[in-house]
Formats: sequence, C-alpha cells, structure tokens
Amino acid sequence: MIIDIHGHYTTAPRALEAWRNQQVAGLADAALTPSPDALKISDEELRESIEANQLAKMRERGIDLTVFSPRASFMAHHIGNVETSVTWARLCNDLCARVAGLYPDNFIGAAMLPQSPGADPRTCLPELDRCVNELGFVALNLNPDPSGGHWTSPPLSDRHWYPIYERMAELDIPAMIHVSTSCNACFHTTGAHYLNADTTAFMQCLTSDLFKDFPTLRFVIPHGGGAVPYHWGRFRGLAQEMKKPLLEEHLLENIFFDTCVYHQPGIDLLTKVIPAKNVLFASEMIGAVRGIDPQTGHAYDDTRRFIEAAPTLSDTERRQIFELNARRVYPRLAAALDARQQGAAR
Amino acid sequence: MIIDIHGHYTTAPRALEAWRNQQVAGLADAALTPSPDALKISDEELRESIEANQLAKMRERGIDLTVFSPRASFMAHHIGNVETSVTWARLCNDLCARVAGLYPDNFIGAAMLPQSPGADPRTCLPELDRCVNELGFVALNLNPDPSGGHWTSPPLSDRHWYPIYERMAELDIPAMIHVSTSCNACFHTTGAHYLNADTTAFMQCLTSDLFKDFPTLRFVIPHGGGAVPYHWGRFRGLAQEMKKPLLEEHLLENIFFDTCVYHQPGIDLLTKVIPAKNVLFASEMIGAVRGIDPQTGHAYDDTRRFIEAAPTLSDTERRQIFELNARRVYPRLAAALDARQQGAAR
Repeated sequence: MIIDIHGHYTTAPRALEAWRNQQVAGLADAALTPSPDALKISDEELRESIEANQLAKMRERGIDLTVFSPRASFMAHHIGNVETSVTWARLCNDLCARVAGLYPDNFIGAAMLPQSPGADPRTCLPELDRCVNELGFVALNLNPDPSGGHWTSPPLSDRHWYPIYERMAELDIPAMIHVSTSCNACFHTTGAHYLNADTTAFMQCLTSDLFKDFPTLRFVIPHGGGAVPYHWGRFRGLAQEMKKPLLEEHLLENIFFDTCVYHQPGIDLLTKVIPAKNVLFASEMIGAVRGIDPQTGHAYDDTRRFIEAAPTLSDTERRQIFELNARRVYPRLAAALDARQQGAAR
Repeated sequence: MIIDIHGHYTTAPRALEAWRNQQVAGLADAALTPSPDALKISDEELRESIEANQLAKMRERGIDLTVFSPRASFMAHHIGNVETSVTWARLCNDLCARVAGLYPDNFIGAAMLPQSPGADPRTCLPELDRCVNELGFVALNLNPDPSGGHWTSPPLSDRHWYPIYERMAELDIPAMIHVSTSCNACFHTTGAHYLNADTTAFMQCLTSDLFKDFPTLRFVIPHGGGAVPYHWGRFRGLAQEMKKPLLEEHLLENIFFDTCVYHQPGIDLLTKVIPAKNVLFASEMIGAVRGIDPQTGHAYDDTRRFIEAAPTLSDTERRQIFELNARRVYPRLAAALDARQQGAAR
C-alpha cells in the first residue's frame, strides 16, 4: 500500500476562490461579507475536480491513499482576524471532508487551523476538535508564521503553542508544519518561504527541549525538511556545540520528513542521511511544481519513482516509507484503515 | 593551489568586541560612544589570533589562501544607524586588511559594508571604494536583510540595490550574499537565518531578470546555496512554470555556490547537481560549526576532505573548485596572485 501524507485540495472548484474573494472584500466593506451558506458546490463538481486531477494521477502512479488538507497557500492566515479565519477554515475543511466522504478509500482529511497573527492558538481548538471528532481527520497543518512571512509569532518551542500540543497529545495526531502564502516581497511562497519555514521549524526544535515536555508530539516537516538533510552535518555539529543529545535521540523520535523533493539526487541524499523510519512518502502533487521534467520525461512531483530508484534503500525500508511509517505517525489513519479492512472482511 | 573564498575574522582580539559593546552603550548614552582611535590592537595580537587559529588550520589542511572578511554575525547591521555602521565597518575592515598585510600569501580581504535598515545603499559606496582601492580587497559581503531577520528591505532584484551593483561592475568584484545575526527569535542565526537567506536570495534572482540588467554581476551564495542544490528539481520546475530560461542559462553565469556543507553526502549532492564551474571551495572555518564530527574523527568544517572524496568530480573539476573558479569569479584576486608570481619571478 502506498500512502501519500501530503496532498492539498489545490484543484477546488472556482466557487471557493470566488467566495474567499468576497470574504476579503467584506473586510473593507462589511456589507459585502458573504454568508458561509453562499458557497454552493455540488458533489458532482467535487468529483470533477478530483477525478481528473489528484485521483487520476494517484491511479497512474499507484498511490492508494492521500492525506488531504486544504490548499496551503490559500490558508493565508494573515488576512483579516480570527473570525475571518474561523469561517474560512471551516469551509475549506468541510470540502476536504466531503472529498474524503466521496472517495473513502483514497482520501482522508487533515485539518487547516483558523490561525490568525497575534491570536491565542486556543482559538483553533474548536475547529481542530470538530475536524478530528466529527469529520474523521487524522492530522493537522500548523502554520508557524500566521503573519505570512513576517515571522511575528514566537518559535514553536514557546509556551504560546502548548495548548495546540496538549490537544494533539489528547487526540493522538501529528502536525505537519506548513506555512501559507508569503506577503513579504522578499520571500517567494513556494521557492523560499516554504523551504525556509521547514528549516526554521527544525532549528526551533533543535535549540529547545520541546520534546521533553511533549514526548509523544510528532511534527512532520514537509518539502524534504527544507535545507535540513542537505546540511545534516551542520545540524549535528550545532547540536553538539550546544551540548544537546545526538539528533537521533534529541529529535528523531518526534520529527519526520516527507519526500517532496523533486529530483533523484535530492531523494538519494534524504534517504541516505535520514533514517528510513523518519521518512514519509509524499508528493504534494498538483502543487508547487506541476510540470514535466525534461531531463526525465516524468512529472517533477512524481516522487514515487525517486523512492523506487533510491540506491541505499532496502525493500523493507521502502515499505516503511510508503506505508508503515504513516501508520505509526498517524495512528488515526492506521485505525481507519484497520476498521475498513475489518469491515471488508465481514 | 587551494583558495578558500569564505573566511571571517571570527577570532579577532577581544578588544574589538569590547569596543563594539562600548559603541552599543553609546547608542543609549552618547557620552559613552568610543572614538575609533580608542581601539588599540597590536600586530602581535593580530598574529596571535591568526597563527594559532585560521593559519594553523590552513597549514594543517593545505589551504593556501583565504578570502577574509569581518565576522559575519558581528556585522549586526540592525544596531544603530548608518553612522554606527560606517564606523564599525571601517574598524572591522581595517583589521582584515592588517591581517592580509601581515600574511599577504595567506589572506586577502573582502569588505563588510556599512549597511543599515532603511538606509540608501549608496551610503555604502565610500567604504566599498576605500576597501577595494586603498586596502586591496577583492570582494564584498552584501547583506540582503540588514534588519537582522525581519526582512524589511526590498528583494535583491529591486532597483534599491542597483547603486551597489553598478559599483561592483565598475570595480569588477563579486558579492557574497551573507546575512548577519538574527534578532528575530524565530530564526537561529547560523542554523536557520543563514540558510534561509541563501535560499531566499537565489529565489529572488530566479524570479527576476536582474542579470539581464547586470550581465557581469556575480553573486556567491554561501553555505552550499542554502536549500537550493538539494531542491534543484524544485527550482528547475518553478523556473519552467514561470517561462524562465533553463537555470544554467538564466542564473549560472552569475551565481556561484560555496562548499560550506559539513558532511560528505551534502558535498556529494552539491558537486553532482551543480556544474563544477559554479562551485567555489570554502570552509568558513572556525565559524558556525567548530567541533569534530564523531562519525569521521575530523572537523565538520574540514571541507577539503569532502571535495577530495566526492565521487563524481574529475581532477580537472577539483582544480576548478579549488582554484580556477575563484580566479575567474574574483578577477582582482587573480590579478593579485599574478602580480605576486611576477614579483617572485623577478
């Protein structure tokens, strides 16, 4: 079985974007604010948006199941205030839940949170609870920089974030650390801000003792961990100078990297440097990089090929990366799969 | 010959730091501001600080010459105003010039600029001219974020920076793009801010047509290019979607990566993915990562070993990386070496 733990609903029907534009217009003129009910998307439209896109590619590439969350760049937590984000997150999560309901064998939800710059993360808990307890979601995306490239929130190791971590422990779900659109002209969203956030989050964990306070906390750092595996020696050396334990001990019980690295040498490095138990298969397909690589003739985001070809991996390790690690890091995903299997066996 | 293009004076006598602390105290109480003349460091003290440190390691590792600039984290352009930085940069550059004067075969200067948040980069030109024309420096360090982690300056592709580039063209010198200390709690200086800045700068170049305006402009992106080579497929794909030329054509006449990557797999990836003509030997020794790697028994920053062992490099390519590229990218360095050779032959 192949589980892709990093998929976003990047192909949602245009009505969603139109609704959001209207919501943004409402920030300047409250009379324009749309009601959540004004968003009308039929199951037929959802099916069209998925079958020709994510599902078609999953079938083509042999991917069975995708952990599916709202479009990362559309979260745009910097827009408006908590209420703006609460309404927007709810709509976006609902659409992912409907997709998972239409294709229960192929998609399972991960929650976008209604974060907002300066807001207490506790304001996110009701939506997180709703997503997990009512919609059956198995993870969340946590944005370490709701300001969108101005980095005005405290580091992830700060107590500011602890209410989220406490709820994660209760619910037994992991968080993917994923920023959204950059509204800082210095940072290109997918070419700089995303990768920088990955590196930044890792280093925030390295310099802290966060995982002593939360031994079961699990962070998935996407995009192959940003710059981290490429500079693994640097990070090992920095930890050593800070008298931290070896990274394996200090961080690798709690931090996992996905495989959204879009060329063979990058995946070869990732799988050579990072223990297989810490690598989770992902492609973020129909995401940041949608073209065909002229050097290979295949899609940049067809990362399964790279894992298959990675020279240092054993078949056992490939199975960990494709399936077993996801079951371990996302226990609610494992439980859902087991329940289905039992249902099918009955 | 082996040229290390990335060395900072991290071991300057303590009197320098004491002077700086006094200068910072003077920002709160002008009466405390020290005179530049108050900094007294003898040649003997400079020799001690260099011979037991950089020079000892260069001899041990067989490195002939280091391009030597003031300590990057001490630039701290976010402190004070333009005048603060003008005085501070001058003192720091003078020390590097004195080291180069004491050890002309082993060190050659690169300039720190007196940048300041919000200041017109033109204010840096007198110090840059002085360093190149009077002190014999062959390059400069350009800080794309003088705010120290708040990223309040325009991207490097903005006309804001053009006066620097015009002067670089006139002087025929390259710039290393190097930030300084982060005063944003989100970013660890050497573990996040440096690497993020490298990735950010590369992407600012990718999305722009800066090198059409300045065809001879040369940027050295340190720390192995941040996350860039590891994500080379991502960057190729992003450029493709933006209808930019192939990266080789679009950027690799103007952008170079150093080899400050502190483990073998990282250097193997760098030298596999990036053409040898774009890779410059560097170690940033006695810098961010000073320990011994228990996995190898050698210093993390002893990068020469990694280049020697990189499996895809030919001897010709190694010679490019160790020497020939530096001569090409830093023509004033080449001219200085040629002049010395002619002097020796006479």
